[in-house]
Amino acid sequence: MTDAPMTAQAASTATAGDILSSHLTALAGAFLRALPLAVGEVGGRPGASVLPSEGTADLLRAVRRISGLLTTFSATFEPVWAQESRTELAWLLNLLALEPGYVRRSARLLGALDGLSGSEAEGPGMLAGHAGAPKARALLDRQLTLARTRAHSTVLQELRSARLHALADRMTLLVAEAPLAESAGGRAGAVLVPQAAAAFGALAASAQQLPLQRASTPYGGDGLRRLGVVPSARGALDADAALAADDAPWHRTRGLVKRARYALEVCGRPSAVLDELDLVLLRHQEASEAAVTAATAARTPRITPATAYVLGVVHADQRLEVEAARYAFGRRWPELPPGTETWLELPPAEGWGASAESRTA
Amino acid sequence: MTDAPMTAQAASTATAGDILSSHLTALAGAFLRALPLAVGEVGGRPGASVLPSEGTADLLRAVRRISGLLTTFSATFEPVWAQESRTELAWLLNLLALEPGYVRRSARLLGALDGLSGSEAEGPGMLAGHAGAPKARALLDRQLTLARTRAHSTVLQELRSARLHALADRMTLLVAEAPLAESAGGRAGAVLVPQAAAAFGALAASAQQLPLQRASTPYGGDGLRRLGVVPSARGALDADAALAADDAPWHRTRGLVKRARYALEVCGRPSAVLDELDLVLLRHQEASEAAVTAATAARTPRITPATAYVLGVVHADQRLEVEAARYAFGRRWPELPPGTETWLELPPAEGWGASAESRTA
Repeated sequence: MTDAPMTAQAASTATAGDILSSHLTALAGAFLRALPLAVGEVGGRPGASVLPSEGTADLLRAVRRISGLLTTFSATFEPVWAQESRTELAWLLNLLALEPGYVRRSARLLGALDGLSGSEAEGPGMLAGHAGAPKARALLDRQLTLARTRAHSTVLQELRSARLHALADRMTLLVAEAPLAESAGGRAGAVLVPQAAAAFGALAASAQQLPLQRASTPYGGDGLRRLGVVPSARGALDADAALAADDAPWHRTRGLVKRARYALEVCGRPSAVLDELDLVLLRHQEASEAAVTAATAARTPRITPATAYVLGVVHADQRLEVEAARYAFGRRWPELPPGTETWLELPPAEGWGASAESRTA
Repeated sequence: MTDAPMTAQAASTATAGDILSSHLTALAGAFLRALPLAVGEVGGRPGASVLPSEGTADLLRAVRRISGLLTTFSATFEPVWAQESRTELAWLLNLLALEPGYVRRSARLLGALDGLSGSEAEGPGMLAGHAGAPKARALLDRQLTLARTRAHSTVLQELRSARLHALADRMTLLVAEAPLAESAGGRAGAVLVPQAAAAFGALAASAQQLPLQRASTPYGGDGLRRLGVVPSARGALDADAALAADDAPWHRTRGLVKRARYALEVCGRPSAVLDELDLVLLRHQEASEAAVTAATAARTPRITPATAYVLGVVHADQRLEVEAARYAFGRRWPELPPGTETWLELPPAEGWGASAESRTA
């Protein structure tokens, strides 16, 4: 993945700055190689591929990791530079995620509708032959295509902006040298381990706030009812706000899972468990967003009752997916010991470079 | 429960006919005591109690058990009499179950709607504050009240019919003596055990046909999609038919669980496992029927899209309950060995009377 240009020899005496610089140099290089490809791909769309094209995927991968490292090991970098870089990377991340997000949401919702209405080979669903199914499908397709087209224009425009050029310049500088803080001169283990441990601590604290006990019993209906109470300004109950509030802690946890994943990568540790949790929470987030889209579509004026009925089934089906993802997370979430060190099990400082090296193999 | 009038002494040499007669005498007595109470209760309704009143519950209990024994141990009875009795008991069972069924369905659907729309204390649901929720509630309430009122009239009429009087006469005769076949003179163990084993065999065979493997993975969406394919006459997919065909094997299995339960009772064996399975499959059946009611209500002409949307959510929610019940069944269903004897573990013939005796204590 990242070409950390470091030998085992050099690594044994590596400073925190050496380790991070080698990772960031490789990631910034990947960023600069992927950027023109990604820009070209966006210009060549809109195709309806579910997965982002290769250049965009590579770019997203680099952006997420650079951003993650700048966050997790923030004490090691020049603070103003790190903060600005994170802001700009977050902007690009959101921008690039926009259009593929709509493509995936469309695939998810139309796939769910097809499964429920039984045009799939696996057997009919509870909406098979329902007059509202093709209408609801057309409505969802139309609304998501429109949203995607709008997103596409926004992305095209922003990819020609001075802001992106400035970010590319920032990455070019990073290939040469990361602006480090004084503490970066310390030994890798002593400087980086506590910061990585803090990222794991934040993840553990966030997961501890989740209703995992409730989620661990399947079919509790928790994605559909018994949502976190959100007293609205007008005193009225608002399902959208309640659903959003119920899902938010899970979305936050996903962000922290990602940070912990990237920290493990820097430590040269396998991150399979976290990769899996990340996927589960991605499924949670996408189902949550798809549910909102279905509910919003059901509010379209002048739709038929049959269409609305089908959208109600699809909405509930996606909330069921939310609940299923929570159950899967609850089953997979490892029981963290009170101290996070045990989970992290960092190698001795000498091991860092070697493991970084082995990852490049 | 049943006052099996039998001493341990007599039981040790009991014939199959002795055992069954003592059970049936007690059950027919319970039938005759409960009948006037039940008739009075039906006349005094319609109240909106979810549970059937005491007299009706006692009557249903006796009817189910008499019918179960006549079926399971049919070889021991005079065949024409047994067949006629079963037909008449089934008629009364359906009749009595009609009105309480609507009351329970109403409680289930309105309870689900209240949970989803968040008027419950436990936190709002995905329909909280939705304009369609009170409308859908009123629609379901109106349609179920109407169905219940109609059922009530039917029941009242039938309870005054000559058919019921004839059935009561039949039960009066049964208190005195059950019309037995010649084989009833054999020893209880030799005659009854094979018939009880056959009931367990039928249950095992029925359960083996269920997609338990699929149901054992939670959140497979099996109650909502991938239903058994039902090619309709016109070649079109019909969700109602597909759902009914998907649920039918589970309903059949419930009937066989009941038969096996009552056979165990005659054997003086604890039936806690089967009682539990029966409850799980009752939940399956009631959710399945409630789902049909929600889908039917959504086809009411001139409802608003908001109402239809809410009914779609409720329909999906009840299908989710169907799926949850299947999961619960799959988890609880004991792994039957190829021979059913092991599960049945019948006591030696001498034990029968003693255990019947201990049950009366």
